[in-house]
Parts: sequence; structure tokens; C-alpha cells
Amino acid sequence: MMRYWSAVVRGLTPYVPGEQPQLPNLNKLNTNEHPYGPSPRVLEAVRAEATDSLRLYPDPNADRLKGAIAAYHNVTPAQVFVGNGSDEVLAHVFQALLKHDARLLFPDVTYSFYPVYCELYGIQYQQLPLTDSFEIHVDDYQQLNGGIIFANPNAPTGRLLKLPEIERLLQANANSVVVIDEAYIDFGGTTAIPLVTRYPQLLVVRTLSKSHALAGLRVGYAIGHRDLIEALLRVKDSFNSYPLSRFAIAGGAAALEDRTYFEGMRDKVIATRGQLVSTLTALGFEVLPSAANFVFARHLHYEGAELSAQLRARGTLVRHFKTPTRIAPFLRITIGTDVQCTALTSALEDILY
Amino acid sequence: MMRYWSAVVRGLTPYVPGEQPQLPNLNKLNTNEHPYGPSPRVLEAVRAEATDSLRLYPDPNADRLKGAIAAYHNVTPAQVFVGNGSDEVLAHVFQALLKHDARLLFPDVTYSFYPVYCELYGIQYQQLPLTDSFEIHVDDYQQLNGGIIFANPNAPTGRLLKLPEIERLLQANANSVVVIDEAYIDFGGTTAIPLVTRYPQLLVVRTLSKSHALAGLRVGYAIGHRDLIEALLRVKDSFNSYPLSRFAIAGGAAALEDRTYFEGMRDKVIATRGQLVSTLTALGFEVLPSAANFVFARHLHYEGAELSAQLRARGTLVRHFKTPTRIAPFLRITIGTDVQCTALTSALEDILY
Repeated sequence: MMRYWSAVVRGLTPYVPGEQPQLPNLNKLNTNEHPYGPSPRVLEAVRAEATDSLRLYPDPNADRLKGAIAAYHNVTPAQVFVGNGSDEVLAHVFQALLKHDARLLFPDVTYSFYPVYCELYGIQYQQLPLTDSFEIHVDDYQQLNGGIIFANPNAPTGRLLKLPEIERLLQANANSVVVIDEAYIDFGGTTAIPLVTRYPQLLVVRTLSKSHALAGLRVGYAIGHRDLIEALLRVKDSFNSYPLSRFAIAGGAAALEDRTYFEGMRDKVIATRGQLVSTLTALGFEVLPSAANFVFARHLHYEGAELSAQLRARGTLVRHFKTPTRIAPFLRITIGTDVQCTALTSALEDILY
Repeated sequence: MMRYWSAVVRGLTPYVPGEQPQLPNLNKLNTNEHPYGPSPRVLEAVRAEATDSLRLYPDPNADRLKGAIAAYHNVTPAQVFVGNGSDEVLAHVFQALLKHDARLLFPDVTYSFYPVYCELYGIQYQQLPLTDSFEIHVDDYQQLNGGIIFANPNAPTGRLLKLPEIERLLQANANSVVVIDEAYIDFGGTTAIPLVTRYPQLLVVRTLSKSHALAGLRVGYAIGHRDLIEALLRVKDSFNSYPLSRFAIAGGAAALEDRTYFEGMRDKVIATRGQLVSTLTALGFEVLPSAANFVFARHLHYEGAELSAQLRARGTLVRHFKTPTRIAPFLRITIGTDVQCTALTSALEDILY
């Protein structure tokens, strides 16, 4: 039957997302979802879309959403591209902007979907090792390349690259596109978005899934020079005219318009993270400095795989990556509510003592 | 700035969907939307998703929706692939199943997105002319090929290819994938889905946008042998883990579960189509036999472009295709409510007399 498959399919090793169990009552700290729900204004906005108007196509350009994003980030709508979650945005970015003769560069430890996109689109790439402390070393990226991409804060480490370092990277790479995937930036970093006016090669990718508590809605976007956006639009309009539903457009815009709610919930997550880091450290974990809504931690005496399995047996899900091997000792733990984090640390005490 | 673009972007001529005007009060008969809203059970189901659970990712496999589709069509869930509208499903089909050394075949007049997908994925294709009466001539497809795709009923003609002809096509093409795009089949044809058990090369693509009045929700799917579905899943999981939102999964399933509502609304559209065909014929139009929720008609004395512009000036939108030139005389007119169709024919009387 594989005779019917295109050649590209045979070589694919698809991305495996974190488990989405259909069981209730699990303490779900494995896919970096926000522990608090979205703004009440989002719920109101999506309910208002549940009408006979669903028979009509959504706006293919999602102008209402683009307008809200542009206002939120103080850019123009022509600098905004929107997609069906940031994974779709990233897919188009790889095809439209990162496929060149020279190799794409990204860290050996970063969002593990990047090499999958490269396989899908036939993009040559090279992974550059993070430092021993799991930091991006900007000087390593001063070489011929067909593009650069990484998450900031990085995944699954949570470590932040500061803006002056990003600017140094941009100054050394004027001839290729530099993509900063800011899925987690709201939890502890400063966005690179203001730099897009000075660096036409910079594209910043964002999602509403994490900091705006809308993983179930599927809204992502990218911000950059309008010529980069134009390339993405060409691919999008050759792939799917209407990637965002009426719910995604209305709900996404409402989320960005309720900044007060967003900031309040974000601050709660950040406060809980501080407490969790203290507790984990006391339990014998080394915890990397996190600017995200998760922590990346290894125990000095227990294997990551073993701890992950033992936690699962006690009803708490965390994420464990077997590869690359240098991160196998670690657990990636999403910041939940205080109650969820206490359940985690109680389970850990039970396992460790 | 084009220096930042991947080579493929430069060669793209994106698909242009029908206009989605933001103005109210237009008589919108240009994008084949259903004139009646979706089932009340759909509205109930999507409203029930407007909760704090939006913070959580949807099921990446959309098992609830696949189960509803499988039950509706009497197939197994392993024979079902779901996507963010049938345009996304089609995109994955082109990349996963239709890119081969031999050329893909499709009619010169069919869904005009097909050549765009070919450009996006670098697929060689050949367009075979419909007959003078705008029918698919199955014998033309008895030649070496890397796949075959067409819409049935065909777009924008509305003409139906009967099942025995499709089966003859399948018997002559065991070595390549045959894709039947059944976006409009519910309005007057018999689905080819039961044939998938006997023909492992057959893939049938469907959408809830038209006959289930859910263009605003974005749900499409494909049904075929599980090995064809496996190829699509590999591409999907290398592109976007979560293409369907919580609203799409819940609303799509509810739509398929309310068969009585669906049949009632479909029958109303079919009845209105019969009346519209009579009126258009009396007004001097030649109307192709339609098995869809639109008619394709040319006036014996007026140009298609001229009529389309004059109708627009009178507040009625229809679709006109400038190319290929053999269809330039035609208008594609969506079947609206009786009131909408009367507004159309009144405007035509005003123009023609």
C-alpha cells in the first residue's frame, strides 16, 4: 500500500505532542496549558458566534483579529500574519522563509517540531549545541546559513536569551531570516517585536495557547516586515483560504483586548512558579532558571523516565523527553494552580522518601 | 526583500476565494454557502465548549468527530481523516498521495485550487478537457498517471459523474490514487464512499461547509483505505498536531448526528434550485444540469462578466470566472432562500429588459 504514498511521506517521523488523556481527574502538568481559563470576554465573544452565521465563511483575512494583534503590539496589520495555532504558522514559515540552499540553524535542544518541519519540506539543517548550562551561544550562529530559528524562552529548557543578545544575533545575520518563537515570552521575558521595525529579517512567532489560556481555540500569529508577511500569505492562500474559524477570530481578538485579565492570571502563574522552584530545590532537584510557564528540572539521584512513570502512577502527568540524551535526566513540569503544584510535590515526596 | 523568500514562494499564484464582503444587506450568492443555518444541536454543542476548558488542547486525534463521521458513513474510524476544512484536507492529500513521477490528471474545468496545490508542492499535472457539454469523459483517464482528482458534482459546473462511471475509472486505475472531492454530493448525487472497501486507491473528500451549513466552523474530512489515511496522518502530524479546535470537534460531530435536520434543509435547497432553473431558463439562460447547491448558467445574449457586474451594482453577488475562457460566459449562482433567489431574478429582469 505504500506504493500510493508520495516519497516524502515514507521519510517522515512525525512530531509526538504531549499526551492529551481523555481521563478526568489527572493532574495534567505535561503540555504547558494555562491553569486558569481564558478571559470571560473571550467566552462571551465565542458564545456570540454560535448563531446561524456559522453557515457563512469566516473572513479569509481575519482582519478583526489582525487589527487586535496590531493594536496590542503597536504594529500595523500589514506586519501581522495569523494561523490555526502557532504550529500552522511555523509550518508556513519553514516552507516560505526557511528553505534555502544554505542550512537552517537551530539549537540541539529546542522545540522538537523544528526538525519535523525540515523533513516535511526537505530543508537542510544543522543543530548547534546549547552550552553546558543550556544557553544559546550567539557567536555560534555567525556562519553562513539559510535561516535561524529558536524558541525564546527556549523549550523545553525555559531559559531566556536576553534582547541585547538577540540584537547581536540580528546584526550578524542580515542576509537570512531569523525566527524567534515566543510561545512562552509572556511569563518572564521581553518580546523582540519592537525590533521588527529595524530588522527586516526578523520574524516573531506567538501563540494564544499558553499565556492567553486558549490552547483549545487554535490561534497563532507572526509579526515581521510586511515582505516577510507577504511570503506567508502567499503560502497560506495556496494552502487554505480560511484557516481561522469564526470562533478563532472573535475569541482571539477578545483575548488580546482584555489585557488586565491576562496580566492578572499571568502574575499568578509567575508567583506559583517561584514557590514551585523553591520546593523542587528543597526536594533535591536542580531547576534551570525559567522564564516560561514550566520548569525544567532534574533530580540529583533519580532518572527522569523513572520519575515521570512514578508520577503518572500517582495521577500527575509531566513531560519527559528521551532524546536528545543530554536532556533525558530532566522533567518538564507545567506550572499549574497552587493546588496542582502541591499535588505534584506531595507525589514527589512520596516517591523520593 | 524577496531575497528572504524560499524559491517556491516566488512561483506561487495563490487561489482567490469568492468575495467575503463585510457589508451587510448584500444578497450573497457567490460562495455556495447554505441559505439556512446549522442544526440547533450544533449551536448547543459549540456553546457548551465556551468554558474554562478552552485553556486545554483539543484531542489531537479528534476521536469524537471521527467516531461521528464513521457512524454516519458506516465506515471505521481508521478509515477517516479530519482537517481544518476540506481545503486543508486537500492540501495534505496533494502532498501525501498525489506527488509522483507521473503526472496528476484532472479536468480543465474543476475546483481551481487544484493547480495551486500543485504549484505549492511541485507536482506535475495535466488538465484534460471536459466534453463540450462540460462532462468528464472517463476514457480520457486511461493513461499513465500519478493520480486523478476531480470534484463530483464538478465545480463550478455542477455536473454529476454517475457511480458506474466512477467505478469504471477505478477499474482502469488500480495503481494510482483517485480522489473524488464530494463537497456538493449531498445536493443531488450518490456518494462513492461505499466503494472504498473495494478500491484501496479511492479517497473521498468531504466538507461540512456546504450541506451542513458550517462554512464558518472549518471542518473537512476524507474517507479511504486505512493505508491512505495513514499517509495523511503522517503529514498532518508533521504539520500541526491540533488542527481542529474544541468547537470544530464538538460542532462537527453534532452536525452529523442530526440527520433529520440536515435532510430537511437540503430538501428545501433542492426544491428552490428546481424553481430557479425554471426561472433562469425563461429569462434566456442555458443552465447546466446541477446536482449541487449552485447552478452554472450562461445567457444567450449577455456576457458573464457584464451580468456579474450589473448584479453586483444591484446588491446581488454571484461568482464569475474569467478563466478558463470556455467558462467565461457563465455565472455560478448559489441556491439561496426563495427570497434571495427572487431578488436575484428580479435584478436579472431589470438588467435584461
